[in-house]
Amino acid sequence: MEVEYTADTPIQLKESKHALQLLTENTPNGKKVQILLEELHDVYGTSWATHLIDLETDEQKKGWFLRLNPNGRIPVLLDSSQTASAISIMESQAILTYLQENYDQSNVFGFISASERSQVMQWLFFWHSSAPVQGHGRHFIKGVKEPIPYAAEYFQKAMLRIYSVLEAHLSGQHRASSATPREYLAGDGIGKYTIADMGTWPHVRGYRSLGFSEDEMRPKFPHLLRWIERIEARPAVQRGIDAGKYDSEENSGLLVRAEL
Amino acid sequence: MEVEYTADTPIQLKESKHALQLLTENTPNGKKVQILLEELHDVYGTSWATHLIDLETDEQKKGWFLRLNPNGRIPVLLDSSQTASAISIMESQAILTYLQENYDQSNVFGFISASERSQVMQWLFFWHSSAPVQGHGRHFIKGVKEPIPYAAEYFQKAMLRIYSVLEAHLSGQHRASSATPREYLAGDGIGKYTIADMGTWPHVRGYRSLGFSEDEMRPKFPHLLRWIERIEARPAVQRGIDAGKYDSEENSGLLVRAEL
Repeated sequence: MEVEYTADTPIQLKESKHALQLLTENTPNGKKVQILLEELHDVYGTSWATHLIDLETDEQKKGWFLRLNPNGRIPVLLDSSQTASAISIMESQAILTYLQENYDQSNVFGFISASERSQVMQWLFFWHSSAPVQGHGRHFIKGVKEPIPYAAEYFQKAMLRIYSVLEAHLSGQHRASSATPREYLAGDGIGKYTIADMGTWPHVRGYRSLGFSEDEMRPKFPHLLRWIERIEARPAVQRGIDAGKYDSEENSGLLVRAEL
Repeated sequence: MEVEYTADTPIQLKESKHALQLLTENTPNGKKVQILLEELHDVYGTSWATHLIDLETDEQKKGWFLRLNPNGRIPVLLDSSQTASAISIMESQAILTYLQENYDQSNVFGFISASERSQVMQWLFFWHSSAPVQGHGRHFIKGVKEPIPYAAEYFQKAMLRIYSVLEAHLSGQHRASSATPREYLAGDGIGKYTIADMGTWPHVRGYRSLGFSEDEMRPKFPHLLRWIERIEARPAVQRGIDAGKYDSEENSGLLVRAEL
């Protein structure tokens, strides 16, 4: 959408000298975009302004924020460089595809062919319908006052099924032609590190929040756990999840709030 | 992924003369792709083979199907026309984007500009993370033996929030510049009918399955209900949801099963 500022839009947004502005907080959905921007920085020197949103005070439900994202959620990306008016982009996976298509000129984190491009989209969508299962599961497992065993078990089972789909894909177990396991979700052969991985990884690595231990997970999902570790080792990923940079409690200088 | 057939892959797939083959059943996820193919037929004369999958017998969990979609779900699209080897595509929203990018040459159901293309992606992703809320909600409201009031209320509340985001967007209520309500989800001005609408509509029109009546819904979400009706009126949409064509109980001639 076209960006609309109001009287109470934080001054940091209005006066930013960066064409790209990221409104975020250090959640899984925020982290995936933080990671891609850090990766783009390492390849192309891409720069942007980071604005942190205090989710505890529901800053993202205020009028100024809803003009940028009617869903009232982080992350949101603003871009004033591609069009006559600045635009705002909601939905973490849509921000990844936008940045990859417009800021990754050499397709380092994506593909050229229709077939491989579609693989990226398939895994981005696969995860986007899986993340809410993890989110609601966490609520019913850890967020309710009175335990509801049926619901906790229902969501744990649903998440184990989702992990098993990722494990089967990475291990190549359904495929006659893939005796060799894959290293990444999308791409022919063993795959290539792309936005499909970035869009999935920050959630999957949080499996412990659903009550699963590493000892339980590793024998069942060995390829998935190695994939988690493979991505975790990247310097841009480490910077992209760094609380010192992206957590508003640790870096309050980047907090933005409605102007009074 | 590259298509791999096995000894038990249904003969109808192996011997099809169509470059495009759709494995589907008349669920919301199936309907959205059925609708787009019917729309493409009306504009370009696009043709395809339809194969119906009996979800009651878990045909989609059998080995031949998992080679085409490791997630074991419909719809799946096969395409042998764009690449040296046939490819299979999973995830309903990813199938929509693939068909729009490769079979809608004039962008009748999509856009050219990066900004409007991103709007399509944003609403496709918005809905893809919302649909599971509706699905799990239906389970906890209508699918459990012992009622769990807390869970039923939790999911009803979550769905009302999601409907309110769509209503706010269509009504333009957060936007200073949009006194005129929108007609469709994506696109500048009042928007244009695109795959973003097709990817959302088959689920949203099923609000009654969550226990909401039209009388409750209309005063709260007037723009959303008119949007449902606007899309429902399209001939291709009517054909795309037609049980006589796409429900395996009514059209058993198109059922495919593992070969013995």
